[in-house]
Amino acid sequence: MNQSDKEMKVSVFIATSLDGFIARKNGNIDWLMAADSSDKSEDYGYQEFYDSIDCLVMGRNSLEKIIDFPEWPYEDKRVVVLSNTLKEVPAQHVDKFEIYSGSLKELVKRLETDGCKSLYIDGGKTIQSFINKGLVTDISITKIPVLLGEGLPLFGKTRRDIKLTHIETKTYPSGFVKSTYEMVQ
Amino acid sequence: MNQSDKEMKVSVFIATSLDGFIARKNGNIDWLMAADSSDKSEDYGYQEFYDSIDCLVMGRNSLEKIIDFPEWPYEDKRVVVLSNTLKEVPAQHVDKFEIYSGSLKELVKRLETDGCKSLYIDGGKTIQSFINKGLVTDISITKIPVLLGEGLPLFGKTRRDIKLTHIETKTYPSGFVKSTYEMVQ
Repeated sequence: MNQSDKEMKVSVFIATSLDGFIARKNGNIDWLMAADSSDKSEDYGYQEFYDSIDCLVMGRNSLEKIIDFPEWPYEDKRVVVLSNTLKEVPAQHVDKFEIYSGSLKELVKRLETDGCKSLYIDGGKTIQSFINKGLVTDISITKIPVLLGEGLPLFGKTRRDIKLTHIETKTYPSGFVKSTYEMVQ
Repeated sequence: MNQSDKEMKVSVFIATSLDGFIARKNGNIDWLMAADSSDKSEDYGYQEFYDSIDCLVMGRNSLEKIIDFPEWPYEDKRVVVLSNTLKEVPAQHVDKFEIYSGSLKELVKRLETDGCKSLYIDGGKTIQSFINKGLVTDISITKIPVLLGEGLPLFGKTRRDIKLTHIETKTYPSGFVKSTYEMVQ
């Protein structure tokens, strides 16, 4: 690959409570659904972001949440599910996603070689792993104005301080505040 | 008190890392000091906030950090230190602060009766206790663009979901993002 080529984007796009949780302990996001009753047409930039990516990487837990949907929600995106236990894509989902187990750095390299320009990293543990490996390039966090007190945290332990560069912050009538950062590598 | 009187403000004004810590585990805030090298004259609204309050309530840990300063930093403010173990104000600090142990609700009532209009609640555990008792009216959080991975969290467990109303968000050239919320009681 030509060194002057722009590197692949590896993005996180997620909502958290003001105290930093992406879901309750049982995975429930009722608080998120309930938080914005004002304008159901506002998607906080999700569709624009989604249209900009060509590949999703998610963990097994994220897969569980969507696998029983009547329609596969990620048509026309390459989807990689990280799992050490899942060995085979179920028959009805062949061509929908692939399973990966191994080095995340290798995965990113492979996807880049395959021509992916923009990855969407989803799921708490998956996001934490990518951040810890220094593989995330940018992160958008939409802060919901509620304290849950406990739940599944967006961030986890890091091996060192990780600096970010603030790119922009947008506020919404619902009280949601979306901040975008680039990781300082 | 006349019910139409405006209630006393009980405010939190604090900085956290992007992952929600107010200090490292040992209390160190080197990361905060190091984060803004661009403009030492920018105080992120602290002086304006400080000028607006007439009383500080802090925990024993916060007191420890300032008690050895050559000059007492809170001249002309009433200072209440929450402590169950400290029984007497040391001689050199008589008239600087008072010690309180007991119900926070009672403390707030007493300060209100004494004519306080605006309290500044400081220190992680103290803030968490005031939030949990439903005594905080507003909170300003300045988000520093760094992940620490671990440390002393601003927020702790709550007895229930606590909703807030977003008032305003301000961004700074340093990348700091300050959001102000009112608590929905």
